[in-house]
Amino acid sequence: MTTQEALKIYREKNEEMHALRHAMGVLHFDGDTAAPAESAEGRGKTLSYLSQCDYQIETGKELNEAVDHLKCHPEELSAQERREIEVFQRQKEFTASVPQDEFVAYVALLNKANAVWHKAKLDSDFAAFAPYIKDIFATNVRFAKYYRPDSAPYDTQLDRYERGLNMEKTDAFFNALKERIVPLLKKVMAKPQVDDSFIWGKRYPIEAQRQFSDYLMDVITINKRRCTIGETEHPFTTMFNKKDVRITTHYHEENPVYSMYSVIHEGGHALYELHSADALEGTILRGGVSMSMHESQSRFMENYVGRSREFISLIFPKMRELFPEQLKGVTAEQMYLAVNKAEPSLIRTEADELTYALHVLVRYEIEKGLFDGSIAVEDLPKIWNAKYKEYLGIDVPDDRRGVLQDSHWSNGNVGYFPSYALGSAYGAQMLAKMKQTVDVEGAIRSGDLSPITGWLEEHIWKHGAMYDPMELLERAVGEPFDPKYFTDYLEKKFTEIYGL
Amino acid sequence: MTTQEALKIYREKNEEMHALRHAMGVLHFDGDTAAPAESAEGRGKTLSYLSQCDYQIETGKELNEAVDHLKCHPEELSAQERREIEVFQRQKEFTASVPQDEFVAYVALLNKANAVWHKAKLDSDFAAFAPYIKDIFATNVRFAKYYRPDSAPYDTQLDRYERGLNMEKTDAFFNALKERIVPLLKKVMAKPQVDDSFIWGKRYPIEAQRQFSDYLMDVITINKRRCTIGETEHPFTTMFNKKDVRITTHYHEENPVYSMYSVIHEGGHALYELHSADALEGTILRGGVSMSMHESQSRFMENYVGRSREFISLIFPKMRELFPEQLKGVTAEQMYLAVNKAEPSLIRTEADELTYALHVLVRYEIEKGLFDGSIAVEDLPKIWNAKYKEYLGIDVPDDRRGVLQDSHWSNGNVGYFPSYALGSAYGAQMLAKMKQTVDVEGAIRSGDLSPITGWLEEHIWKHGAMYDPMELLERAVGEPFDPKYFTDYLEKKFTEIYGL
Repeated sequence: MTTQEALKIYREKNEEMHALRHAMGVLHFDGDTAAPAESAEGRGKTLSYLSQCDYQIETGKELNEAVDHLKCHPEELSAQERREIEVFQRQKEFTASVPQDEFVAYVALLNKANAVWHKAKLDSDFAAFAPYIKDIFATNVRFAKYYRPDSAPYDTQLDRYERGLNMEKTDAFFNALKERIVPLLKKVMAKPQVDDSFIWGKRYPIEAQRQFSDYLMDVITINKRRCTIGETEHPFTTMFNKKDVRITTHYHEENPVYSMYSVIHEGGHALYELHSADALEGTILRGGVSMSMHESQSRFMENYVGRSREFISLIFPKMRELFPEQLKGVTAEQMYLAVNKAEPSLIRTEADELTYALHVLVRYEIEKGLFDGSIAVEDLPKIWNAKYKEYLGIDVPDDRRGVLQDSHWSNGNVGYFPSYALGSAYGAQMLAKMKQTVDVEGAIRSGDLSPITGWLEEHIWKHGAMYDPMELLERAVGEPFDPKYFTDYLEKKFTEIYGL
Repeated sequence: MTTQEALKIYREKNEEMHALRHAMGVLHFDGDTAAPAESAEGRGKTLSYLSQCDYQIETGKELNEAVDHLKCHPEELSAQERREIEVFQRQKEFTASVPQDEFVAYVALLNKANAVWHKAKLDSDFAAFAPYIKDIFATNVRFAKYYRPDSAPYDTQLDRYERGLNMEKTDAFFNALKERIVPLLKKVMAKPQVDDSFIWGKRYPIEAQRQFSDYLMDVITINKRRCTIGETEHPFTTMFNKKDVRITTHYHEENPVYSMYSVIHEGGHALYELHSADALEGTILRGGVSMSMHESQSRFMENYVGRSREFISLIFPKMRELFPEQLKGVTAEQMYLAVNKAEPSLIRTEADELTYALHVLVRYEIEKGLFDGSIAVEDLPKIWNAKYKEYLGIDVPDDRRGVLQDSHWSNGNVGYFPSYALGSAYGAQMLAKMKQTVDVEGAIRSGDLSPITGWLEEHIWKHGAMYDPMELLERAVGEPFDPKYFTDYLEKKFTEIYGL
């Protein structure tokens, strides 16, 4: 086999897997957005078959002989090709370590689990979903052991989401956050609370909120010919290629701010995918490199841009145009304070910037316990509620607003949660670096975000998965990851808002 | 190979093809409902790959050896199994006659053509779409010749949509219609026109129309846990299995009747799919047997149920509840007359029952001419407009409302149009037979449609593709197909409405 022949096989097989994953992605998206309630079973069968085809190609002899050849001839490959082979090899090692029937069974399990979770959450019925949590975690532990028999399974899992991450580093990270955030939150809570009462008690028609979403997508520079917006119970982003990205939101008639930040958050994810370099398109390297890096971009848009005073000034005229009666007499400054109100709350996705990491910490500790066996699934509601009491000082009234609130476990996203907090911290470090050369506030104030998006495209977006996440961050900011930028940011912002 | 082994292979391969077709169907549906404008290219690649996999299984050695074995041992098969093999064999013969690369290229062509057509229609730009019509018809002629070298290609095409149909029969059918409809329409046009002016000049909010759709789906007994409704420029129905059917509609703010009949029409398609027998599920026999039979069910619901005086009386209170200001002072009888107003018009999907078949006739004659070469694609707008003048007496102002109005050709549905007229005629014959044992008007008046849906389920829906369409019709009505039931129905109805 020549290197050209091997590359040809690699490219062909890559395209086939890409097509299968595209189809599976659309089936999932359709399942979340348009499919009827009883469609899960039929979809599950189709997903099982497609994932089986994918498995067979990924672990098949033809592709792997080609990849083995390419690995032995790195000097004949471009830097991008070498990286493609490296990333493929890493993914394949995991896939190949899992027996095919278990892999296919897991896909079917998740498809079913997601439907069960939806209903269980609606009914606040933990018992209905508990067997699935048990199965999903047990499967993840088993897979982690197949893959790396000598590592702690949760270390393996964290590393799969964020290469280089493990429990030791994550513990240190959360300790650094706790140390600064917990006392800061105490000081905030001792001050008079920000007034956001003017938002409530009114009706914000969905149709006007849809127009607001459209406007916000334009403001943050999303190309709507390549990215559409849908409506789901839980907002998310999915992507098939750089010309086909989808975001979703959820409209609450009583409060337009919820959807507003969903759109900006998911829009941040979308921008990352929409601006992956053309040269990476169709390869395994296209799109976001990791969940944390993705969250760094979504939370950058949501918080560092979207919750800034300048951003609220920029968009407030449009808000008042769409909701003239509802926002009569309200100023942009009042809205700025309202969207930054910090207080312990029940729902992670609605949490403010300051308390958000504590929500994530609860989930991290629980996942760790489920992986090492120190927490039993049956005890989850009790433990969840105790941790919310401990870290956030609040009582959880029911499992719907407690342990059943997130879709992640039902989708097999186990070990994902730390990404949210890490992402915020990555983003804060990027913001600090960006400010050395970009007038961030000025750009937002002017409504032309291109200096900001330009920096992110240059340093993050265009690189896709060319570098591991920590390396990408270090290249972008010129030093290793340091969570102090995040805690500094929080301290400065909330000191100002609450007059500490 | 034993028959059991052969059956096992047949079943497995059948499931694989089913999965691939499910995925392709969802990709198409998503492309029509949710995907961004520039996503067609990526979707085209994925569809090409999946259709290639499908082709390889369908024409593959393993499956065909199994099928050859089963064909030789019919005595060891159940009636259903024998029919499955017969239908598979028939489909496969067509597929296998087409070279794989041409088949895959055609899938890619259609994916592109559909996107081009959408834009061309919007811009009323025939020249942009013309090359695709040329390509699509040329491909269909070529495929028809591969399949049946000795038949006229359009005969082959008609037979593929409706087994047993050919140009001779279709000509005779349309002649029988023309003979009665043209003079009837003349008499109608000589009478004072029905007044539907009270509908116009108002705004019917989309949100209320969405509630109306929900209500209508309930009235016609659609299980909404198995069938959802979406919104597209052109209403359609798609189905993946009996627990996963989708209908779409299009809301016009200035007139709720358009969407109302889209919902009932597509709902009729959906009912047929939702009530295919359980025993057929997952087999090649599940769901509607042919396009004409499908149209017989959709137009049965739309016209014989939905445009009856009893149906309007039944639903009118709900209409008035949803649109109280807009329909103030309007009676159910006025609405009944308005939704049955007959007059020549430009748009097939908005045509009344009386003129509908003439719209179809125009398309049939054009397709025939494109197939035998007597019509050149360049001349299509001219010929289209001349035929509308000839049969309907009206001038076509632009191609958007003329030759570009239908999506069919862009989807490769060439030879499909006659199904619409045939379906209406099948349905009228079913109605006549049904009335011998069912109090149709009484059932509609009571709001309990189950005597009607029960008859249709028993005689049509549950049989899936167990019988060829003409045989299924004959079994249901006890005699061969006869278009006089349709023309009798039209004559009676419009004589009464217009006082002829």
